[in-house]
Amino acid sequence: SEVKKIAVIAGDGIGPEVVAEALKVLKKTEELFGYAFETEQALFGGIAIDERGTPLPEDTLDICRSADAVLLGAVGGPKWDNNPKELRPETGLLGIRKALGLFSNLRPAVVFDCLKDASTLKPEVLEGTDLMVVRELTGGIYFGDKLRRQGEFGEEAVDTCVYNVTEVERIVRQAFEIAGKRRNKLASVDKANVLETSRLWREVVNRIAPEYPQVELEHVLVDNCAMQLLRRPSSFDVIVTENMFGDILSDEAAMLTGSIGMLASASLGEGSYGLYEPVHGSAPDIAGQGLANPIATILSLALMFRMTFGYEAAAAAIEAAVAEVLDAGHRTSDIAVDKSKAISTTEMGDLIVAAI
Amino acid sequence: SEVKKIAVIAGDGIGPEVVAEALKVLKKTEELFGYAFETEQALFGGIAIDERGTPLPEDTLDICRSADAVLLGAVGGPKWDNNPKELRPETGLLGIRKALGLFSNLRPAVVFDCLKDASTLKPEVLEGTDLMVVRELTGGIYFGDKLRRQGEFGEEAVDTCVYNVTEVERIVRQAFEIAGKRRNKLASVDKANVLETSRLWREVVNRIAPEYPQVELEHVLVDNCAMQLLRRPSSFDVIVTENMFGDILSDEAAMLTGSIGMLASASLGEGSYGLYEPVHGSAPDIAGQGLANPIATILSLALMFRMTFGYEAAAAAIEAAVAEVLDAGHRTSDIAVDKSKAISTTEMGDLIVAAI
Ligand SMILES: CC(C)[C@H](C(=O)O)[C@@H](O)C(=O)O
Ligand SMILES: CC(C)[C@H](C(=O)O)[C@@H](O)C(=O)O
Repeated sequence: SEVKKIAVIAGDGIGPEVVAEALKVLKKTEELFGYAFETEQALFGGIAIDERGTPLPEDTLDICRSADAVLLGAVGGPKWDNNPKELRPETGLLGIRKALGLFSNLRPAVVFDCLKDASTLKPEVLEGTDLMVVRELTGGIYFGDKLRRQGEFGEEAVDTCVYNVTEVERIVRQAFEIAGKRRNKLASVDKANVLETSRLWREVVNRIAPEYPQVELEHVLVDNCAMQLLRRPSSFDVIVTENMFGDILSDEAAMLTGSIGMLASASLGEGSYGLYEPVHGSAPDIAGQGLANPIATILSLALMFRMTFGYEAAAAAIEAAVAEVLDAGHRTSDIAVDKSKAISTTEMGDLIVAAI
Repeated sequence: SEVKKIAVIAGDGIGPEVVAEALKVLKKTEELFGYAFETEQALFGGIAIDERGTPLPEDTLDICRSADAVLLGAVGGPKWDNNPKELRPETGLLGIRKALGLFSNLRPAVVFDCLKDASTLKPEVLEGTDLMVVRELTGGIYFGDKLRRQGEFGEEAVDTCVYNVTEVERIVRQAFEIAGKRRNKLASVDKANVLETSRLWREVVNRIAPEYPQVELEHVLVDNCAMQLLRRPSSFDVIVTENMFGDILSDEAAMLTGSIGMLASASLGEGSYGLYEPVHGSAPDIAGQGLANPIATILSLALMFRMTFGYEAAAAAIEAAVAEVLDAGHRTSDIAVDKSKAISTTEMGDLIVAAI
């Protein structure tokens, strides 16, 4: 089959360690399934700031643009937290999303059986929780004009939240499509009783809804959603919302599963292009010690196989291998009950590779 | 002692029922403590839309302005949900906050012993949770300019989020004061890695912090806070944040206590003036049936005694009476394990009055 190009961004903290394991998995699937991948490493985030003076070097963007998909480890760390805005890893993250047109962020929040007890929620409440947050990623208050000025009451700061119908339509349509392939339930989250952008959002959702008659739609106010996620997490299927609300709610949803260290995410644009990364961060405190759990990154690769390449069989094989290794009782220290029996990052990677 | 004036807004749904019980409590404290109150009822919310064509009639504002404090039941309901903006109860709520200068919303989230099991969180996680969200209430994206316009990509909507240093200073200072009277811990929540208003917010917090050296300050990003509230709720003492984040986080915090039907809130301005209301909504589905739990409203009155009038003894007496009645096993149906033994709204009110 044709050669697929993958841009690989190891990033900061535990990023390089977890990405290395995912690349072993990639290699194994070449052998087993006859795929051909070409990978190219690119500098991004804190390490790019250190080595190149910018979180998102132009050639990193070129490498990403010429690839079919991007695999990202993690970026950021306290080292860069007090830098000026242009020299912060987050600025690179926002920049790459915008530059690659990744308007949609998918964060599946599922409960791993072996991690049921890791949640702070009661098991009976969590039972059956399997939801997907579809977050708009290149609009809203993240990308609107920002300014400082002198006002009547001293210095003031302004952020602008803007959405146009085209932006809302494409993400909402995608959410309906995804819901149609899952359990046919969509919760659109907004604050239409206060925000004009939310009222536009809700109008667009209501206009598109009749195209998906099989999908049951509910509008949920963002404050109520923050509550309902806690009260009835398993009743949600797909949640679609704007950028800022999605940032907050997807983190809440991920945390309530108790499986946050194992969750994958995809950021998609038009067509099949996508950037895939674990939901967890760069965990600088445990970096370089072989303690990191590579599963979320390996599952992000599986998501890439499924969503960008259409390699469903390989995606399923990776997911099955992860399940098998977990079922056999292997744990990295983050998810081990008995930490003395925990295995290392590379051991976990090797076991998964062997199980595929 | 001098006569205190209280504006009483019963509102919609269960509002009138729960307010009636709080007024019985008020009367009892007059007898017991020798206070003198003058109450004046005012129309507000849905009922004001129906009877006066506006959610916030001018004379309601006059009544509130000439009072020392406001007691509010609840407003809103499906009946008015599809009205145009000017004819919606929420518009009245935003209007009254602005008109009365209520820039600070205090939402204590505590766990009632008898309701420990009502939470979806594990009891051992919840243990010791007692936090207060201090939400900025008259600024930010709630009150910034809003508009619709034709853009390059079709119709677009705009919301503006504005904060000036004066607004941030007064709420932050208040939060430090409150933390100083509690457990000396303050979490300031923002999204300083993305928003200019958050960067201003954080600058102000850092500038004020040295005035309160005994208060331990942490800055928490809003997405992280949504997670930490789930992971370690008992580690929070006071959380201070801007309007929109506060809306979301205070609801999440209230829900995780499992005691949302029992929580009181205060909205304060300069000086001792305040508006007090239960955290719960108007519950139109159970309105008029004697099923509503009046405790949150009665505790809101206790908060008024403490915060506006400085009647600490009476506030404590009301709180003790509520605890006594609950300890004796009395429950309205919302909190009853055995619904068949549930008592009515008025029975609960009478029991609390008798216990004071
Ligand atoms: C780091 C930050 C800018 C980013 C965001 O807010 O989008 C992160 O929280 C995320 O969710 O990917
Ligand atoms: C009804 C709504 C406008 C209001 C708000 O968002 O402030 C409510 O959610 C609240 O928290 O009091």
